[in-house]
Amino acid sequence: MNIKITGSGSYIPSKVVTNADFANHKFLNEDGSSINYSNDVIAQKFTDITGIQERRYALGDQNTSDMATIAAKKAIEDANIDPETLDYIILAHNFGDVKKGAIQGDMLPSLASKVKYNLRIKNPNCVAYDMLFGCPGWVESVIQAQAFIKAGMAKKCLVIGAETLSRVVDPFDRDSMIYSDGAGATIIESTEEDCGILSHKSGTYTYDEANYLYFGKSYNQDNDPDVRYIKMYGRKIYEFALSNVPNAMKECLENAKIDISEVKKILIHQANEKMDEAIINRFYKLYKTATPEGIMPMSIHKLGNSSVATVPTLYDLIIKGQIDNQSLNKGDIILFASVGAGMNINAIAYRM
Amino acid sequence: MNIKITGSGSYIPSKVVTNADFANHKFLNEDGSSINYSNDVIAQKFTDITGIQERRYALGDQNTSDMATIAAKKAIEDANIDPETLDYIILAHNFGDVKKGAIQGDMLPSLASKVKYNLRIKNPNCVAYDMLFGCPGWVESVIQAQAFIKAGMAKKCLVIGAETLSRVVDPFDRDSMIYSDGAGATIIESTEEDCGILSHKSGTYTYDEANYLYFGKSYNQDNDPDVRYIKMYGRKIYEFALSNVPNAMKECLENAKIDISEVKKILIHQANEKMDEAIINRFYKLYKTATPEGIMPMSIHKLGNSSVATVPTLYDLIIKGQIDNQSLNKGDIILFASVGAGMNINAIAYRM
Repeated sequence: MNIKITGSGSYIPSKVVTNADFANHKFLNEDGSSINYSNDVIAQKFTDITGIQERRYALGDQNTSDMATIAAKKAIEDANIDPETLDYIILAHNFGDVKKGAIQGDMLPSLASKVKYNLRIKNPNCVAYDMLFGCPGWVESVIQAQAFIKAGMAKKCLVIGAETLSRVVDPFDRDSMIYSDGAGATIIESTEEDCGILSHKSGTYTYDEANYLYFGKSYNQDNDPDVRYIKMYGRKIYEFALSNVPNAMKECLENAKIDISEVKKILIHQANEKMDEAIINRFYKLYKTATPEGIMPMSIHKLGNSSVATVPTLYDLIIKGQIDNQSLNKGDIILFASVGAGMNINAIAYRM
Repeated sequence: MNIKITGSGSYIPSKVVTNADFANHKFLNEDGSSINYSNDVIAQKFTDITGIQERRYALGDQNTSDMATIAAKKAIEDANIDPETLDYIILAHNFGDVKKGAIQGDMLPSLASKVKYNLRIKNPNCVAYDMLFGCPGWVESVIQAQAFIKAGMAKKCLVIGAETLSRVVDPFDRDSMIYSDGAGATIIESTEEDCGILSHKSGTYTYDEANYLYFGKSYNQDNDPDVRYIKMYGRKIYEFALSNVPNAMKECLENAKIDISEVKKILIHQANEKMDEAIINRFYKLYKTATPEGIMPMSIHKLGNSSVATVPTLYDLIIKGQIDNQSLNKGDIILFASVGAGMNINAIAYRM
């Protein structure tokens, strides 16, 4: 028995926010001091490092669970399954439903329950839960779906990554330009075909790294310190990712007994273009091989970093032929990889 | 191969809050109107239904992840394992770390990552994640640990349920008297012994039930409607639980091919004494049998409803001989059962 993705769907909010839209922000350093550059210079540096020109924000009345529902409907349609036959709905997020203008996240009931409600699924044997694992949450949820199927507890799982980071960003922090909103969903099923998940690798690094991404107060010292936002130590994350993600990907590939030359595509969490390129280059360097042209499809330029949503959205866009000069074909070996808050890292080797 | 609990620990906060401590609260109806009873009468009715005389609140500087850490340390010590050998840390909660006086929950990094950090575990192969499944989260996390072990992905898992409901209660709502704080933890391991998990049953009911427990505004109409609290439709939950929990327990027992006469104890989520008694009575009625005396150990009188923490705490207290006239002995068949937000229901049949 193998375990494969039988359908995918994604939701990309229609609201486009360009770098120029941050022109009037007053960006500050962590200690509240002013930054000695104009916003034009800040935006240019930002684009050079992250590759991000635009990002998408949820509409005012949309919540994370609403976007998750739209992506889920598309994945169910794509897989051509009866939603009543789902055994699990696993929803990866990190902040709950944060209503626009409010500061609290709402996870009662779980977002997976809200999606199940929105999908009008009646079958009580379809178990719906949320999981929190930083940006690698969607990849990890696929690994959990695999466990349930292997253990004989499930045959069909709906696995969703959805996030509305625009609701948890500090407008005084330059890093707020990285984050965006969106949702990606997949159906994971057991199959007798010779394809699907070949191996996986997961890790949680907390000893020194637990707070590289954290929930912290605004850089504006006049703001309420109990109102908190997504914050990161970018340099530390960059170094951590470079030291650990390539090795995790290599270990994953070795577990699958796949030669590096067979890898056709690497679908990596869209965190930061320069970081993603450095990770991939170091990965190939571990094999003393040059990084193949076009191996790493990117969506970050126009979509930004939507956390758990980037990998399933990227997969869906490629499958649907919506990324220029990129495709996934029957038999192709691909690697999924992600890194983020926790700090967590994971990878899946997969045969299309 | 079987899968068993090899150690347990719990943390019960030292701060006792009695029903009399609510004497000065101004309780209101959902529409903001006054309640035509004195607080004495409200407290008496409350005790008659729920059985709760006291509850525990976390100390001012304690968060959910702090309590989870204490319970986890005790469970690790009880199981006599090296924490570096853990394959998973699964932490069930529903609101994150809510700092006293603040209204936002903090789950970045995940509470499981925070616990791993607090435990000073270095091994990156110990994967730490949070799961949200309402009050049945701890039981469901045990079911997930079982899946990982069955799938060959883990041998040892730390499974924690921790919650600080005192930080999300509306002081104008009588139901706030139900909720309390605490943490329970267990080590789940594979074993060659003839004991452990015999079967499980899980369900998520959302079609009509998704919002029986929800995050809603204060009953005080002058309060900010965007500051939200745990809210419930108690009558609906009572009817739902009575209609569905006994059947889920029966199905679980049938899956294990265990006769009702063999069941020695039922460890049920401490939600409400009258509801729990009604569930157990209806469960035995399904077998046309009288409810055996002492079958259902209770901790609710002194500890209240601490959500995901009640079942592992109850287990730990009985194992440690801290519940009068209750014990668990080698070979005993017990049933774990829980019901809560989602709406979710689950049960595990277990041989000690």
